[in-house]
Amino acid sequence: MTTVYDVTTWSAPEDPSATAASDIGLIINSIIADIKSQQTNQASKPGAIVYIPPGDYSLKTRVEVDISYLTIRGSGHGFTSLSIRYNAGDTNNWHEINPGASRVRVENTDGKSEAFRVYRGGDPRLSSVVFENFCLDGVSFGGDENDYTNGKTGILFDSANDACRVERMGMVYLERGLVVRDTDALSVSGNFLAECGSCVELTGSGQASKVTDNLIGAGFVGYSIFAEGHYGLLISGNNVFPRGRSSVHFKNCARSTITSNRFHAFYPGMVVFEGSCAENLLGANHFLRQMEPFDPMKPYNNGLDDLFGLVHVSGSNNTITGNHFSFDVPSGSVTPSGQKPTIILVASGSGNFIATNNIVAAIAVHSVVLDSSTSGSKVLDCGDEDEVVRYASDYAFRPTP
Amino acid sequence: MTTVYDVTTWSAPEDPSATAASDIGLIINSIIADIKSQQTNQASKPGAIVYIPPGDYSLKTRVEVDISYLTIRGSGHGFTSLSIRYNAGDTNNWHEINPGASRVRVENTDGKSEAFRVYRGGDPRLSSVVFENFCLDGVSFGGDENDYTNGKTGILFDSANDACRVERMGMVYLERGLVVRDTDALSVSGNFLAECGSCVELTGSGQASKVTDNLIGAGFVGYSIFAEGHYGLLISGNNVFPRGRSSVHFKNCARSTITSNRFHAFYPGMVVFEGSCAENLLGANHFLRQMEPFDPMKPYNNGLDDLFGLVHVSGSNNTITGNHFSFDVPSGSVTPSGQKPTIILVASGSGNFIATNNIVAAIAVHSVVLDSSTSGSKVLDCGDEDEVVRYASDYAFRPTP
Amino acid sequence: MTTVYDVTTWSAPEDPSATAASDIGLIINSIIADIKSQQTNQASKPGAIVYIPPGDYSLKTRVEVDISYLTIRGSGHGFTSLSIRYNAGDTNNWHEINPGASRVRVENTDGKSEAFRVYRGGDPRLSSVVFENFCLDGVSFGGDENDYTNGKTGILFDSANDACRVERMGMVYLERGLVVRDTDALSVSGNFLAECGSCVELTGSGQASKVTDNLIGAGFVGYSIFAEGHYGLLISGNNVFPRGRSSVHFKNCARSTITSNRFHAFYPGMVVFEGSCAENLLGANHFLRQMEPFDPMKPYNNGLDDLFGLVHVSGSNNTITGNHFSFDVPSGSVTPSGQKPTIILVASGSGNFIATNNIVAAIAVHSVVLDSSTSGSKVLDCGDEDEVVRYASDYAFRPTP
Repeated sequence: MTTVYDVTTWSAPEDPSATAASDIGLIINSIIADIKSQQTNQASKPGAIVYIPPGDYSLKTRVEVDISYLTIRGSGHGFTSLSIRYNAGDTNNWHEINPGASRVRVENTDGKSEAFRVYRGGDPRLSSVVFENFCLDGVSFGGDENDYTNGKTGILFDSANDACRVERMGMVYLERGLVVRDTDALSVSGNFLAECGSCVELTGSGQASKVTDNLIGAGFVGYSIFAEGHYGLLISGNNVFPRGRSSVHFKNCARSTITSNRFHAFYPGMVVFEGSCAENLLGANHFLRQMEPFDPMKPYNNGLDDLFGLVHVSGSNNTITGNHFSFDVPSGSVTPSGQKPTIILVASGSGNFIATNNIVAAIAVHSVVLDSSTSGSKVLDCGDEDEVVRYASDYAFRPTP
Repeated sequence: MTTVYDVTTWSAPEDPSATAASDIGLIINSIIADIKSQQTNQASKPGAIVYIPPGDYSLKTRVEVDISYLTIRGSGHGFTSLSIRYNAGDTNNWHEINPGASRVRVENTDGKSEAFRVYRGGDPRLSSVVFENFCLDGVSFGGDENDYTNGKTGILFDSANDACRVERMGMVYLERGLVVRDTDALSVSGNFLAECGSCVELTGSGQASKVTDNLIGAGFVGYSIFAEGHYGLLISGNNVFPRGRSSVHFKNCARSTITSNRFHAFYPGMVVFEGSCAENLLGANHFLRQMEPFDPMKPYNNGLDDLFGLVHVSGSNNTITGNHFSFDVPSGSVTPSGQKPTIILVASGSGNFIATNNIVAAIAVHSVVLDSSTSGSKVLDCGDEDEVVRYASDYAFRPTP
Repeated sequence: MTTVYDVTTWSAPEDPSATAASDIGLIINSIIADIKSQQTNQASKPGAIVYIPPGDYSLKTRVEVDISYLTIRGSGHGFTSLSIRYNAGDTNNWHEINPGASRVRVENTDGKSEAFRVYRGGDPRLSSVVFENFCLDGVSFGGDENDYTNGKTGILFDSANDACRVERMGMVYLERGLVVRDTDALSVSGNFLAECGSCVELTGSGQASKVTDNLIGAGFVGYSIFAEGHYGLLISGNNVFPRGRSSVHFKNCARSTITSNRFHAFYPGMVVFEGSCAENLLGANHFLRQMEPFDPMKPYNNGLDDLFGLVHVSGSNNTITGNHFSFDVPSGSVTPSGQKPTIILVASGSGNFIATNNIVAAIAVHSVVLDSSTSGSKVLDCGDEDEVVRYASDYAFRPTP
């Protein structure tokens, strides 16, 4: 029984002329078919390793993963900045111009958007599918190399799944990097996901998952880390750099945790709690907000103004403690012009607890703003009488001495 | 000199009829004997890799690891939920029913409890023994598949050790997953340890170790993470889900750190400091306590009542700051009936510092209770006069505004 | 095209008599030359894997890495304590005396200090160079095995670089372990770096990097973690043990983050912000300061006295929240004799925010000292009127109740 398949040595019976270089997707699908043909005993279906050695591979056919315990593994995340390259002018004298290591160029000709789709109906959910240590390269954003759109997705988990892992991967110049729906106990760790429209999107629902120890930075069109309908999600130890429209965006997420991360952004709305977000912890994170410094990207932003908040809270009983905020925007760049920027906006909900956050700003800001619709917020040691704005009638407030 | 041994191709001189499929324990012991026969020079004993390809292997003979620098490595943690399977009724139409990847079935016939025992007398301590990326499957809990008992242990480190690693492993349906005694600078990271009676037990003594970035959830009979006699232990970035009798249990541990974790439990006693636990930091963690929602498991709990505290502190000078607590238990389920549940109980000791914790509960609770035997506790911004109960006579208290 | 090179099977055309055992540096340089000879197309330079199996290798020639996407990978970090060995007396009966696994002995005969140098001129910067899971052993500190000096460096990144990784490595008995200049989005994670003069030095400048999930402990002559001119550095989830002259030393670093670490030291100056360090977050860390307990090392220290502070801050607008400090030094060992030790010293700057830190000490200490040159510090809940010493005239102070 074969247990380790090398994409460069596999001959696909479905198309003997195909190679991993010409269509790694077709090759991996053929390998998966072979694994399934050998796994005839319900009690023993251990899966296999699909190994992608260092090299350049075109993916023209979407890979359909429908077995548990499959690991697709390369030998290097292979990231390089395509944004710098495409904005550099003449690169004829460059040593190299493309990502490398185990590099899969996402170039579907099958009408699909995704390089990899993980999907299976019936029971049980797919378990322990693993993507590890290779590079998914969207190659180009087309006419405008700075618009972060090309319709390409790296990996889509499209049915409920358990105990899966995406670790040590590299992704670059995909409109959507990783999309996982209805996940349980997912691990997204140790990855380098950057210069993608969105990097990590956890959609539908989910529980008990983690996004830890990654280097992540999306484009202005999308999310660095997005989660929907999750509870018990842990986002910790990530270095999230620009220029995502947000660093972390929760939609209807509850009882989740965002701790010990470093966030850097060029727009408001760095951490957004949208819809009904309850009982989440946002603690011990570092926030830095600056203006876009890179000329080619200066025309773009996420459309939000500085009253939206670096942290924007919709929902109740969230805890925001022990964070540092650096707001480094000159007064002339603030929008709406002449307004004081908001650092933490409680836009709705009751019982939000905001304590011991330090706000550093070169210009006058509102450290916390409580919308008039909110109630029961507690704001302790986050600024003085002028910095903490209470439009609400029901709240507790202790100014920083 | 052989440096990488594949268990599926090794022929054991001790028993040429044995295979990795029939008894991977015997095979690995034979490999270790071969490594030792080649390591005759005290100055050069580099060890080797024992590789377990994806596949199903029965372990009937305990592996005896008594050399340093041995790595036992598989190609996938291979977890799937056996709890769901065994409680699912008819699984005839399921795609698969067992864990997979590099799956070792723990089926000792040698009278031993452990699949792996790491032990050596003399000097120096064993160093840099590594277990990595395979699955230890206890297969069944026997007559009652929900009782978490079968006498099986995955890995036992049974003598003092240094710089060892258990990383990216999967464990399921073992009564005890990982047990490590007298450890120094241990790394337990990136694992998926669930549906075991206990998951991680650090016994005897220990120092300067870490349990980080894991997905862990034990059974009601045992511990998700237990440590005894440790100091300088770092437990950070873990997502610890039900249903362990505790999430983290310290017995006589000092100067250790529990930060940036997500804890979820169905019983009181989520973090327990037992005996004399001093100068530990419990900071920036998220706690969620709910009632057991899964019918087959509703008969079970850890026997503690709601006055025990979600956090139970015996010992002095501990720091508990910046945590979020969600207590989501209906009043009718509280025990003792009619009592207010306790979130943080300081059961003994002096000088405990408890500040800026946010407690969210659907019913009235006591956020902090100071036992009458305690002294010198400081409780700041953790609740109001009614929520913080001071049976002690000597304490400092500042109510949340 | 070769993609995986095994150092033990490569024959170097430059010197057919060379072996990996006799000079692994020469062998790897020959492999790199071969990779470069095959990478003739600017658009496709995927690099390769250089694999170091378990074994003992001498490095006599510095490795010159000047291509992107090269991974140098072993099969084990192989750490053992040479400090214990060299201070143990007779080791004739020891099982083994040296580090192991994929062990590279750093024994340059080429007049160079470094085992590995990563350097390239021109554009673009080197990307995605990876060092992974092998051991760099400096073998000996020479005449005095406790002086941490031998002129040997493990890895030097000597030109600007992006998206590189040093992960799961072991280093021991090097004067300098890892030195990286001018880095962007570096990952230093999962390593075991100990008994080196300095362990991690990030020099020159840098951004958006992370040092996470490591076990680290330097010698008294150097740094466990040093960073210069960095911003957006994330240091999280590390267990940093003695006996570095500091645990984390920032020189002119800004907007960086030190969270959820465990620090243990035998001298003052555990976390030092030198020069101009602004807007950094030091949160949710555990500090333990004790006296050197190991007789052979008792003659040594870092030369600082107890007025220097366990945390020493030069710079403005830093945030220090939610940390635990254990100061366990008997009064007779304090220097200058008779003085009260300082836990947090704000030595210069304005607007530093210090809140909700718990200081535990067997003897009377000053929890926070504000130098007279400082202004605008805020000190909340870090000690009482006597413990927080305000030589400054401009500050805010709220004593712990």
